[in-house]
Amino acid sequence: MTDPSPAGQHTVRRHNSALVLRAVAADPGVSRAAIAARTGLAKATVSSLVDRLLAADLVAETGPVARAGRGRSGTGLRLSGSGPHGLGVEIGVDYLATCLVDLTGRMHAHRLRPGDNRRRGVQQVLASTVRAVRTSLRDAAARGVPVGGIGVAVPGLVEAATGLLRLAPNLGWRDVDLGGRLRAALPEVPGGIRVGNEADFAAAAQLWESAELRDFVHVSGEIGIGAGFVVDGALFAGVRGFSGEIGHIPVDPAGPECGCGARGCLDRLAGLEWILRDAGVWDEPGARPPAEVLDELVARLSAGDQRAGTAVRHAGRWLGIALAAAVNVLDVPTVVLGGSYAVLEPWLREALRAELDTRVLSAACEPVRVIRSELGRDAAVRGAATSIVRTIIDDPDVFIAGDLGT
Amino acid sequence: MTDPSPAGQHTVRRHNSALVLRAVAADPGVSRAAIAARTGLAKATVSSLVDRLLAADLVAETGPVARAGRGRSGTGLRLSGSGPHGLGVEIGVDYLATCLVDLTGRMHAHRLRPGDNRRRGVQQVLASTVRAVRTSLRDAAARGVPVGGIGVAVPGLVEAATGLLRLAPNLGWRDVDLGGRLRAALPEVPGGIRVGNEADFAAAAQLWESAELRDFVHVSGEIGIGAGFVVDGALFAGVRGFSGEIGHIPVDPAGPECGCGARGCLDRLAGLEWILRDAGVWDEPGARPPAEVLDELVARLSAGDQRAGTAVRHAGRWLGIALAAAVNVLDVPTVVLGGSYAVLEPWLREALRAELDTRVLSAACEPVRVIRSELGRDAAVRGAATSIVRTIIDDPDVFIAGDLGT
Repeated sequence: MTDPSPAGQHTVRRHNSALVLRAVAADPGVSRAAIAARTGLAKATVSSLVDRLLAADLVAETGPVARAGRGRSGTGLRLSGSGPHGLGVEIGVDYLATCLVDLTGRMHAHRLRPGDNRRRGVQQVLASTVRAVRTSLRDAAARGVPVGGIGVAVPGLVEAATGLLRLAPNLGWRDVDLGGRLRAALPEVPGGIRVGNEADFAAAAQLWESAELRDFVHVSGEIGIGAGFVVDGALFAGVRGFSGEIGHIPVDPAGPECGCGARGCLDRLAGLEWILRDAGVWDEPGARPPAEVLDELVARLSAGDQRAGTAVRHAGRWLGIALAAAVNVLDVPTVVLGGSYAVLEPWLREALRAELDTRVLSAACEPVRVIRSELGRDAAVRGAATSIVRTIIDDPDVFIAGDLGT
Repeated sequence: MTDPSPAGQHTVRRHNSALVLRAVAADPGVSRAAIAARTGLAKATVSSLVDRLLAADLVAETGPVARAGRGRSGTGLRLSGSGPHGLGVEIGVDYLATCLVDLTGRMHAHRLRPGDNRRRGVQQVLASTVRAVRTSLRDAAARGVPVGGIGVAVPGLVEAATGLLRLAPNLGWRDVDLGGRLRAALPEVPGGIRVGNEADFAAAAQLWESAELRDFVHVSGEIGIGAGFVVDGALFAGVRGFSGEIGHIPVDPAGPECGCGARGCLDRLAGLEWILRDAGVWDEPGARPPAEVLDELVARLSAGDQRAGTAVRHAGRWLGIALAAAVNVLDVPTVVLGGSYAVLEPWLREALRAELDTRVLSAACEPVRVIRSELGRDAAVRGAATSIVRTIIDDPDVFIAGDLGT
């Protein structure tokens, strides 16, 4: 920072910029005068802060608002779609996904690369990840937008204090400094690289998508099953960042062995690969894009295929047992089915409901609400990218300072 | 409030009184000068606030402190043991307990009345509760101390927003306004009546007892099994206050039917009554004081009785499975065994550990710590009483205003 003005002024401006940007985010089309009224800032201060936000392309002007006052205060403001984008990466068990998300939360240039990452070491997967990020950076350049940082979603335990990936059982990885290694390989990437658990990113995406949902568990079932808990509008990541591992709730303690070494984990009984096997539509991992295999399952279910129906109902029952345990422990009123469970919801809903109704103690007073996410199977990669733009909206001066080179 | 001074002064004094009292609580024997140094308040302000706290018997003076300065600042201050006491009541499934707790956290006049509350209606149990509270009030009068309010621990779901007992499956109660009914029957009781879940009160008692434990689940096994979660030094009660119902985690989904109607709940497989049955030391509920029956079990275990040993090991295994589910969901690093589990710990520890080590995903990085509570089986009633004195310590002016009749 070479700006010669005193530190106190920076702090105040930084705080006020965030106030103004949040007001714009909360109410697209808002006028400068309305922002002044809502924030309690002087109109001149708002105008000067808005000028900086416009220059950094964090906000854009809309046409004149309906009841325009004098001068520029009659122009509406919204978050800029051509401002900084978050770059999201998801290292899935059998795919690699990337996307860009703009400040308004809209996703662009989503790319999905099927491929079984279990058969490849950390080194190889990281090399693919670096290539995928570079492609995504070119997507951003082609759109003419800057990238504000990278969010990386992984199917494992990410330690909150260090950002280390401590354990990813389905990948067979332990203690990998993904953030550090990606940073070293991608010195050209502006902004931070943030590694997080895929289920937490997916739950966060759900939270940012639907402001009225403030307390829920978002569960997504791919090869591994993860959950993210949102309590009072904030992600609850646990003491060390390891919460939500519902894939390893013992739902049948004497049941079949799970990849983690224990018996009867939910992952082993209701993970997507096991559903596909039981339904008779399983292929070698990576042979077909996962979405295509899931489509085939849905086609069979729609056609009334008995084997497929039974497989999905069984999974719904096991999922209901695990979610009953989770809701009894944590007390959230709503379950949001995401990922492949959202796709399979019509066929697993009844079995799931029955377990929740019987097994959640508080269901006798208030039944657990079960809803289906509209985000599809991209929730985690989208949440990873969105986490970057949320950081910019929460504290725009960090981006502005970097962007303006001061 | 008839005090004519402006509201602003009240607010400041109220805030500063709490600051001073907290400084005394944190460092018994502290001098007025040291409080001034630590809080940043002027010495004269501290002296005047301390005089009010002394007059209300919230603090007491110790002898001169070691390196005494000039005048009264050389006298140490501590919380007063003869100041207001919290009155705790626990409505157990097969007993009724009461106690008093002073400001220093010491318990007095603990009384335990065995008796099966399942066979009696709400009306009858409440009548016994009212009598027990009156006895406890007489205990306080005999000690010459005022009572600051009543905390009531119950084995059921207490709705945070309303204070209603929504459901107590082991008592067969639903939607009881315990607080309102006790208030109506006990108009003479000063202060508030606060109803809460027994497992949450027990966990809070554990938190207040051991300042170094900041993140844990406290599990206590009586006829019902309850858990209280403490995250970052605060009780985590869930969205509606219904968290910690680990007694209804399905540990053997196809297992025997639980009182709640579901199959294979932890309550049904590791609740104290079922352990006693399996061990062959079971009596009709209320026939003997529960502690006496537990003593008999411990005697048999110590003598190497095989049936007793197997029963407790099985319970430890089921408990380990349920706690593995809870830790996978919520991510706490420490399990505190309380209540009868603390008593049985030497005989169930190994089976419990084995399940936690195998089934908690993060245990591969950091094994779950298992410790035994020193609080004994009185943790819930103690926590209920302590919650009242904690309220006074957090905001002493409410008590002073009531006490001084202003």
